[in-house]
Amino acid sequence: MITGKNYIGSFLSNKGAITFKTFNPQLNVENEMIFYETSTAEINKAVSLATSAFKEFRNISGIRKAVFLNAIADEILDLGDELINTYCSETGLPAGRAQGERGRTVGQLRSFAQLVDEGSWVEATIDTAQPDREPIPKPDLRKMLTALGPVVVFGASNFPLAYSTAGGDTAAALAAGCPVIVKSHPMHAGTGELVASAIIKAAEKTGMPNGVFSNLNSSGISVGTQLVSHSGVKAVGFTGSIKGGRALFDLASKRKEPIPVFAEMGSVNPVIILPNALNNRAADLAKTYAGSVTLGTGQFCTNPGLILGIKSDALTEFVNTLGKEIAAIDPMCMLHPNIIGVYEVNKEKAILQKDVAVVSVYQKDVKTNFARQVITTVEGVTFLENPTLHQEVFGPYSIIVQCESKNQLEEILSNLEGQLTGTVIANDNEENDFKEVISTLQNRVGRIIFNGVPTGVEVCPSMHHGGPYPASTDSRFTAVGIHSIKRWARPFSYQNWPNDLLPAELQNDNPLEISRLVNGLKTIDIITNE
Amino acid sequence: MITGKNYIGSFLSNKGAITFKTFNPQLNVENEMIFYETSTAEINKAVSLATSAFKEFRNISGIRKAVFLNAIADEILDLGDELINTYCSETGLPAGRAQGERGRTVGQLRSFAQLVDEGSWVEATIDTAQPDREPIPKPDLRKMLTALGPVVVFGASNFPLAYSTAGGDTAAALAAGCPVIVKSHPMHAGTGELVASAIIKAAEKTGMPNGVFSNLNSSGISVGTQLVSHSGVKAVGFTGSIKGGRALFDLASKRKEPIPVFAEMGSVNPVIILPNALNNRAADLAKTYAGSVTLGTGQFCTNPGLILGIKSDALTEFVNTLGKEIAAIDPMCMLHPNIIGVYEVNKEKAILQKDVAVVSVYQKDVKTNFARQVITTVEGVTFLENPTLHQEVFGPYSIIVQCESKNQLEEILSNLEGQLTGTVIANDNEENDFKEVISTLQNRVGRIIFNGVPTGVEVCPSMHHGGPYPASTDSRFTAVGIHSIKRWARPFSYQNWPNDLLPAELQNDNPLEISRLVNGLKTIDIITNE
Repeated sequence: MITGKNYIGSFLSNKGAITFKTFNPQLNVENEMIFYETSTAEINKAVSLATSAFKEFRNISGIRKAVFLNAIADEILDLGDELINTYCSETGLPAGRAQGERGRTVGQLRSFAQLVDEGSWVEATIDTAQPDREPIPKPDLRKMLTALGPVVVFGASNFPLAYSTAGGDTAAALAAGCPVIVKSHPMHAGTGELVASAIIKAAEKTGMPNGVFSNLNSSGISVGTQLVSHSGVKAVGFTGSIKGGRALFDLASKRKEPIPVFAEMGSVNPVIILPNALNNRAADLAKTYAGSVTLGTGQFCTNPGLILGIKSDALTEFVNTLGKEIAAIDPMCMLHPNIIGVYEVNKEKAILQKDVAVVSVYQKDVKTNFARQVITTVEGVTFLENPTLHQEVFGPYSIIVQCESKNQLEEILSNLEGQLTGTVIANDNEENDFKEVISTLQNRVGRIIFNGVPTGVEVCPSMHHGGPYPASTDSRFTAVGIHSIKRWARPFSYQNWPNDLLPAELQNDNPLEISRLVNGLKTIDIITNE
Repeated sequence: MITGKNYIGSFLSNKGAITFKTFNPQLNVENEMIFYETSTAEINKAVSLATSAFKEFRNISGIRKAVFLNAIADEILDLGDELINTYCSETGLPAGRAQGERGRTVGQLRSFAQLVDEGSWVEATIDTAQPDREPIPKPDLRKMLTALGPVVVFGASNFPLAYSTAGGDTAAALAAGCPVIVKSHPMHAGTGELVASAIIKAAEKTGMPNGVFSNLNSSGISVGTQLVSHSGVKAVGFTGSIKGGRALFDLASKRKEPIPVFAEMGSVNPVIILPNALNNRAADLAKTYAGSVTLGTGQFCTNPGLILGIKSDALTEFVNTLGKEIAAIDPMCMLHPNIIGVYEVNKEKAILQKDVAVVSVYQKDVKTNFARQVITTVEGVTFLENPTLHQEVFGPYSIIVQCESKNQLEEILSNLEGQLTGTVIANDNEENDFKEVISTLQNRVGRIIFNGVPTGVEVCPSMHHGGPYPASTDSRFTAVGIHSIKRWARPFSYQNWPNDLLPAELQNDNPLEISRLVNGLKTIDIITNE
């Protein structure tokens, strides 16, 4: 049941004076429930509870954390149709998408449960003592990853489940041993509260300390700003706009004690279509990309917003076919009037740039909050000279750049900002003739795709979801997959520490049977030569 | 031979107008050689060379990088006595220290050579395709670490070899595939140029691209500031003061494209001596700590600047004995008049704080640039209330805090800033009665030591040298040991990428025979099911 209140640890609380409602973009009406923005006192209480929960939680075994994470997944599933209906009413997205995203969310929780249940993720590294070493004895040193401290997670507007309350950032942080305070996204506060109630139930059922999780409502930037500035908060996860992510990064960097902000801020995800591919299958590619550009009304961070080719008749065919295909797709609802408002502004700005040609706009009337998809095209030199055209237009929009030559293509790529993904479309091994172009693309992105589309982010260990700035604030960490746990942990060394006081991961007899690096060799063996 | 010029790639260049000399603190005279500060044009040229070298260097095999790193080690050894004599004349440190630090430097280079020669450090992770998966096919995804780009390394005043020109940061960055531009430390510019000449020789002999290394002289902050602000620079390594490290961090955070600054900024390295240990061996501990406090004239970042105990007769005995022991040690030369100048100022400031008692000061006359070691003591409450007493006094200085109780000890620890190390001295299993105190200490440090001293940083995989801010700007990375390579690399994913275009680390037949995570299992097996 949704109450509109905040979870300050396990306590429902609504002491704030500011209230707000969520919005149903399909019906173009406000939803009924009144939500209470968190007050400063409630924020301080949540951080204080998280700080004291951390003392216990960081030492809880991986096995118990796994039970907790699996319990969260179970409780989310137990929310049943109320969750799906609330999700749809707050996003305008269809039930199928809600169900799919719930499956992804539950899958992420279970994969982190498996990771910490097994336990080797702590990268246990042991070098045993050499008391007789000359000129000085070598001490016994043992290292493993340990939790950073309370983490703040910002809910993402475009993933109310998979990158919000119990999404990837939260699952990874809890798995690492960090209490989590969620700054709930105001557009889906009801969905957020339902998921929060599942986490709180799971925490209580599995005996986790109060304060291991809090869920804070907010209607503007004040709650998030206070959280990121709070000395008790030790790291931040964010998915959203460059403007929002950079503001948090700047705030965190200016603190007396700077803290890491892992902001995944999206990108235009350049796609290069090489000549043979265009010659062989321009029309097919246009159909495929019409689907990718409009998938989820273009509201994915991996949306292909920039398509590049070298001028040819085949490229012209691709441009024209993509235009027709796009125009034939029924427009869809965007997440919120604010989102479509920004889309309209950015789209207009892009279209009105000098020498930008509109290939296609969906022409018929559309319902309120439904987005007209647009394809534009420019010459390579125009694109090179106008950085405004490099910016993301969040929504079903893409620009096709028609380059003069391979050299111009490479020059354009070398001038792009950092991107989450890059895609290369090729036929007949022509990629071998474009090695420098591809190498240049590679240096600007976090993931490179061959003969596919950037949309669709597989959740698996080999996925890197992140990239050079501004795709993310820290290109060294992924926001998707089990390795994202590394954002929330730091290495810690014990020197000559008594065996029985060491964490189980580092004890001589390896009671968890994890894989460890012992004196330079990976092994699950126990240590006997002491 | 020292020329006083900069290495802009392999070119010796001295186009700058500013010149400076190094200083011999033992003799209290300037050394003769004139050094030329790098001009802005030379800085831009070095970054430009590094940027173009990166295109080639990031794809050079681990085996070839290992040859390069070993060649640097060989060339450093070939410098022979000229290096040792220059080191001593620019630091006031004895030849034995120079030789020891050279051994450490060479050892570090060889350990990174071994790491990249073997190759598994790239954390290759592969999930093979499942074309028949429902509802959508699973793509083939393969991930590994790849180099960040050109790195700037700031030489450290207190480690002219091991944390300067070819020190830990440089060795790790080159091993990762990043070109390195060293901002040479002005206090040992001659030592720096000699080592730089060894690196350049090694690069030429092993066929590395020009620009893979540059060495820039500077007398003030201008060269470093320009480097950290340069858009071509992608990461920074620094060892030094909090003031200096924070300034670089702030500069890097404010860039249009923020870049990581790994600053290791030292700390006071709290030591807790528990009651039984004091009762059993106060005098012995005092002797041991007199040595640790004055080791290298206190010029180590792991110097024990803060010793804590609970009030007792045994603690009084420890304080008095440490005072006597300290006063009996012959004062030693500090690195530079500027260093001893800052030591004197900070020491005076600390001594003059309210309710600080001086236990012992070396009383006799000392030579110019030689430091008088000092021990002070305060009550727990005094320390708690005065943050000035928490600050590092870089040099042979330590303050002993006499706590009222275990609770006060824990409160003090919980109020400390982040530290590189914490040490617990205990007897008769009394550590079991101080678990909360130790847990609190653990949360403030990067390494915890049992019944030892914090000085002495073993170079091995299980060493973590770093800690919560301000010990370092990023507690998630070590500055010592092979894992420090992770500072200079980012994960990169290939999706459905043609096997023959993949880097060797990710190809089906695993030609490098490295350990990889394939479909969730660690293996060196080849991949056949394609």
